[in-house]
Amino acid sequence: MTQVFNFSAGPAVLPKEVLGQAASEMLDWHGSGMSVMEMSHRGPEFISIHEQAEADLRELLAVPANYKILFMQGGGLGQNSLVPLNLAGRKPHGAALGPATIDFVHTGSWSGKSVKEAARYAKVNVAASSEANGFTAVPPQDAWKLSTDAAYLHVCTNETIDGVEFNFVPTVQGDTPIVADMSSHILSRTIDVSKYGVIFAGAQKNIGPAGLTLVIVREDLLDHALPICPGVFNWRAVADADSMLNTPPTYAIYIAGLVFAHLKRQGGVAAMEQRNIDKARLLYAALDADDFYRNRVAPDSRSRMNIPFYLRDESLNDKFLAGAKARGLLQLKGHKSVGGMRASIYNAMPIEGVQALVDYLNEFAGRRVSP
Amino acid sequence: MTQVFNFSAGPAVLPKEVLGQAASEMLDWHGSGMSVMEMSHRGPEFISIHEQAEADLRELLAVPANYKILFMQGGGLGQNSLVPLNLAGRKPHGAALGPATIDFVHTGSWSGKSVKEAARYAKVNVAASSEANGFTAVPPQDAWKLSTDAAYLHVCTNETIDGVEFNFVPTVQGDTPIVADMSSHILSRTIDVSKYGVIFAGAQKNIGPAGLTLVIVREDLLDHALPICPGVFNWRAVADADSMLNTPPTYAIYIAGLVFAHLKRQGGVAAMEQRNIDKARLLYAALDADDFYRNRVAPDSRSRMNIPFYLRDESLNDKFLAGAKARGLLQLKGHKSVGGMRASIYNAMPIEGVQALVDYLNEFAGRRVSP
Repeated sequence: MTQVFNFSAGPAVLPKEVLGQAASEMLDWHGSGMSVMEMSHRGPEFISIHEQAEADLRELLAVPANYKILFMQGGGLGQNSLVPLNLAGRKPHGAALGPATIDFVHTGSWSGKSVKEAARYAKVNVAASSEANGFTAVPPQDAWKLSTDAAYLHVCTNETIDGVEFNFVPTVQGDTPIVADMSSHILSRTIDVSKYGVIFAGAQKNIGPAGLTLVIVREDLLDHALPICPGVFNWRAVADADSMLNTPPTYAIYIAGLVFAHLKRQGGVAAMEQRNIDKARLLYAALDADDFYRNRVAPDSRSRMNIPFYLRDESLNDKFLAGAKARGLLQLKGHKSVGGMRASIYNAMPIEGVQALVDYLNEFAGRRVSP
Repeated sequence: MTQVFNFSAGPAVLPKEVLGQAASEMLDWHGSGMSVMEMSHRGPEFISIHEQAEADLRELLAVPANYKILFMQGGGLGQNSLVPLNLAGRKPHGAALGPATIDFVHTGSWSGKSVKEAARYAKVNVAASSEANGFTAVPPQDAWKLSTDAAYLHVCTNETIDGVEFNFVPTVQGDTPIVADMSSHILSRTIDVSKYGVIFAGAQKNIGPAGLTLVIVREDLLDHALPICPGVFNWRAVADADSMLNTPPTYAIYIAGLVFAHLKRQGGVAAMEQRNIDKARLLYAALDADDFYRNRVAPDSRSRMNIPFYLRDESLNDKFLAGAKARGLLQLKGHKSVGGMRASIYNAMPIEGVQALVDYLNEFAGRRVSP
């Protein structure tokens, strides 16, 4: 097998141990004679897989008992529509008649998409935006212009394309729920779930295969759907059916469950966070060593997961990528909307992979590095 | 490995050859050093997988050039909402102001769900229903009361729970498009795609893993979405992005592609149809041999894929299921809404599995069968 390090922003690298177990169980799960792909979602075999995955995730994130964990489909982008369809029926005391207002903090590409989708169903208030500075920092909380009657506040706590990560939990007025798109950093750091009303995440970064979407929702927020919300995506209906309202993406849930079990063996989220801090520090140090490379994000808003960078001399981009590929350092090309390079270093990226990238960065820059 | 035959209605049995290939490629697809699960959906490796899957499906179903093939998420139940969200904006010449009218033929559980979902977005006209006779036949076409100004006609051409299958293509007035939910019999028989406006199917029967939804749509029907249609589920947007508007369920598409390649090697859909005819004939003959078992569906509406049946003496149900399981005949319990038994015999069920079930049916009934 070719030894590679895969820096894709998602779908992304998975633990080798998880893939090995999946391969060995592919034709016969635990003596059942069936692949997990072939199991009825309502049979005892799959129900045990599903329940274990949910229990392990609840333990890893310390999800309080009054939150439901939903396994859905449609990705993070799907939730950009499904959150307002499920929550824009929430009217705080004193709210005006007519469509609800939703507050947003615009910190990059993904929060921008969420504003656009929500505008189909509600009034949108962009309480703060870092667009004018090129999405290089989370706007300081004291400058946010929050509504007094918002149905909820939406934030994307890690912008996958822009490499901007929240290092604080927003403060809201009254009981406004915070909805957080954590697609690209969930399970990479400890979080206090109780500070959020809704957390959602596409699976294809730190959870498992694309096609599974995680939604963690406080129980009192399950009953605010608009009548036009498709039944199959109604959080209350999905919660009441234990995510079996229709056939769930069973194989993706199985792989996610293997990832959760792996994370527990690795010491849980706090242990992953420490490794992620170390990995990010190593990589940013190499980028900051001189001006050969550049990461534009303000230090206190830099993502530990997605690290975009630019070569000072962009005419070297193709050469840089070809050399990286030759060393097994894959998928480093930046998102087409912003160009440059991007290294995504999710949980499953070992520090050896980051070190290999750092070695290449130094070599390509012609730096002499003490061994 | 335990030798079993899995009669699950879905997720369902997959070809052993497909599962074996998936296992062998799990950690390293074609020397890439990556699992298919780890590949960026925008990289050349996955794009080649996606394109080949689409091309093979187009060939298998002889999909005309003016139809788009979309790989989506949310299942057949999701499309029950997403079809009206995408098509209820279609107003035929002379249609009244206000919400569109959608015609339905109610032949069982799944078409019933589609009526309920569409009522969120349009007026629904149940043009015909077999509910009064317990969903045991497709109502004869000459008794259907179709609207003159329907946005479209929705049919479920194989009812998975009720075991009722269309053996004809509906006739419509003017240019009303036919939307067919073919979730549980697509690829099991030849179809003339050009007779339909839209065909959709959840993958987890004859295509591949749950979590992938196939939509085949005639190009002129891409532009009739309601403004409230979530962007990520808008057929035009998905079509224009080659099903990459957001991250598609990449691994499920890969497995589907392996299934399509397998079907081509098996002789294509016409060859599968002949085997499915033989398998269904064998099983129905055993059920009809005397009155120990009973299938209620009218002979010309009997499904070749999903065959519900009842024991004359239902107090023997548990004994029947236990004996079946002991012989490796799995997941024969009927859907909870209708009780009894159900054998789903999709493409990947070999005739040996049907023969094993027939042998058990005869044995359990105490029949003396000539060898």
